[in-house]
Amino acid sequence: MPRAKFSTCARFSYMAKNSIDFKAVILAGGSGERFWPLSTPERPKQFLRVFGGESLIRQSVTRLLGLVKFEDVYVVTSKDLVQATRRELPEVPAANIIGEPMRRDTGAAVALGVGAASRGDRSVVGFFPSDQMVSDPKRFRAAVKRAVGIAAKGRRIVTLGIKPTFPATGFGYVNPENGAFVEKPDAAKARGYLKKGYLWNAGMFIARTDVFRGAFGSCAPDLLPLASGRTHAPLRDVYEALPKISFDFAVLEKCGGVAVVPGEFGWDDVGSFAAFDTYFPHDSRGNVREGPCTVVESDSNICVARSARISLLGVSNLVVVTTPDAVLVADKSRLGDMKKLFRK
Amino acid sequence: MPRAKFSTCARFSYMAKNSIDFKAVILAGGSGERFWPLSTPERPKQFLRVFGGESLIRQSVTRLLGLVKFEDVYVVTSKDLVQATRRELPEVPAANIIGEPMRRDTGAAVALGVGAASRGDRSVVGFFPSDQMVSDPKRFRAAVKRAVGIAAKGRRIVTLGIKPTFPATGFGYVNPENGAFVEKPDAAKARGYLKKGYLWNAGMFIARTDVFRGAFGSCAPDLLPLASGRTHAPLRDVYEALPKISFDFAVLEKCGGVAVVPGEFGWDDVGSFAAFDTYFPHDSRGNVREGPCTVVESDSNICVARSARISLLGVSNLVVVTTPDAVLVADKSRLGDMKKLFRK
Repeated sequence: MPRAKFSTCARFSYMAKNSIDFKAVILAGGSGERFWPLSTPERPKQFLRVFGGESLIRQSVTRLLGLVKFEDVYVVTSKDLVQATRRELPEVPAANIIGEPMRRDTGAAVALGVGAASRGDRSVVGFFPSDQMVSDPKRFRAAVKRAVGIAAKGRRIVTLGIKPTFPATGFGYVNPENGAFVEKPDAAKARGYLKKGYLWNAGMFIARTDVFRGAFGSCAPDLLPLASGRTHAPLRDVYEALPKISFDFAVLEKCGGVAVVPGEFGWDDVGSFAAFDTYFPHDSRGNVREGPCTVVESDSNICVARSARISLLGVSNLVVVTTPDAVLVADKSRLGDMKKLFRK
Repeated sequence: MPRAKFSTCARFSYMAKNSIDFKAVILAGGSGERFWPLSTPERPKQFLRVFGGESLIRQSVTRLLGLVKFEDVYVVTSKDLVQATRRELPEVPAANIIGEPMRRDTGAAVALGVGAASRGDRSVVGFFPSDQMVSDPKRFRAAVKRAVGIAAKGRRIVTLGIKPTFPATGFGYVNPENGAFVEKPDAAKARGYLKKGYLWNAGMFIARTDVFRGAFGSCAPDLLPLASGRTHAPLRDVYEALPKISFDFAVLEKCGGVAVVPGEFGWDDVGSFAAFDTYFPHDSRGNVREGPCTVVESDSNICVARSARISLLGVSNLVVVTTPDAVLVADKSRLGDMKKLFRK
């Protein structure tokens, strides 16, 4: 799998040369359920190292280098994960890694990020998830650069729309012609969206600070003080009063008028254990093995042994994961229901 | 499940009163594969405590009490298991628990048992597996008593034939009319055998010492010195020279003329993890759980957690067993192939 590469020279920000003050905010609010038991609430998905050697959050930062320096990177995460995130990203100034006192969905997280990262109305701030894979970081940076250039003009929020590779039902879509967002579709609708040229909404959006603040002011005024850095109460009290709402729903869908930069850079949301099928080699019967796995007459399983040896006999399409603390045995088709394991 | 019950009085041997010198030999040569990882080569199936609280081997002995005293019980096992077996059966004289130096199948084990247990040509010796379940021990003892009575007449080897409850393909059968044994059949043949009134061969056979020795002499003369207690070389050297052959094949099938006492006493060979379905309660979706198991939208699984919690999501007909050393995930229909896990 290609890895982000950058020379020391490339670290001098392209943006600086073009006198655009660009900051990148990594949103790292994962709960650790979808890769449980490899990930846990204490070590959520962004800390997974299985995909490409470095943790997903570190890859999310390093693939931006060349467009930003480490000092221009911010992370919004939960307060319990601040220390672990600082250890994972020692080059990022500690003050740039900000803990939310409680979960209030991405609406609050984006507002907090705008408030923290902006150096004035003309700063361009881009938001990126902490737990994605990009197999072609060069094309990724080219797309981000283009989006930043558009955002710097100060008219619109710009989103990166991913060219779909299949009619996914697990992502929202965006219409690149009018910037209208649509929710996760059923299979039939998804096929229609592909025909219409809709793109996947990958949760990456970039805008000038004044544009973000304007959008909050019009569409989600509750969040404006946070985005303006004009909150005086302790953050816990501010958060307590906030609605739990996603930035997509609160701003992008409600306000509309988003510019879309299409991207094709091998994007993957690493949304479930099924990602192991994408990133690991398979044996002759389609099994992925990580750690000591004995596999007899079994097909298309994902076997991840982090404690005792796993032995599979005559089973198919399973995800079997063991850690010293837990054992998961799930049908691959049911990975979207992982949350049900925690509601018991 | 009913448990063997016996009063102190009942321990005074019925056989003694009828002046039949009856000894019971428990054959305990299991390799621990079929219940791996709960059982292991060091703790094979007969030591499992999950079925009825006491280990299977202890149940195998106690259900005979009333017909024999502990002092009349012998165990033939592998030499590595002698100490563990003595600990499990402290009431049985230590000298009665005999270790085979290597595996030579049941032919050699029975010969060794005859040689060890007999007090003379008129002793009646009965052989019983160490790893079966009997839900009605009273009827079991009645059947054994009848078989011992017939055996004491000194004409034939007597076997207990189990009335089949389904057309099993995993057992050999015996024709009760002529005492002819037939090998494990396919499904169609098995149905035919049930119609003809054939019985399951449960590996229990009883004969007078002179009858056993006569049968070895005629049909398996290699084994006669062992059965006569007339070996002078170290047991390892004797065994080294012996063929690997089952008693069924070497004697019962070859010599024929076996008397059959039919039995109906809730017999089960506890042959695989499927036995959990027989002996444990099920939840509303047919799952058996032992230890901490979280089961979500999953049906008809056997979940045995002996270390970390097991979580099942959307899976069916699996056997999932964890110990601190190993994790097994097998399809129920493939439990007959457990050996394949060890040939890798």
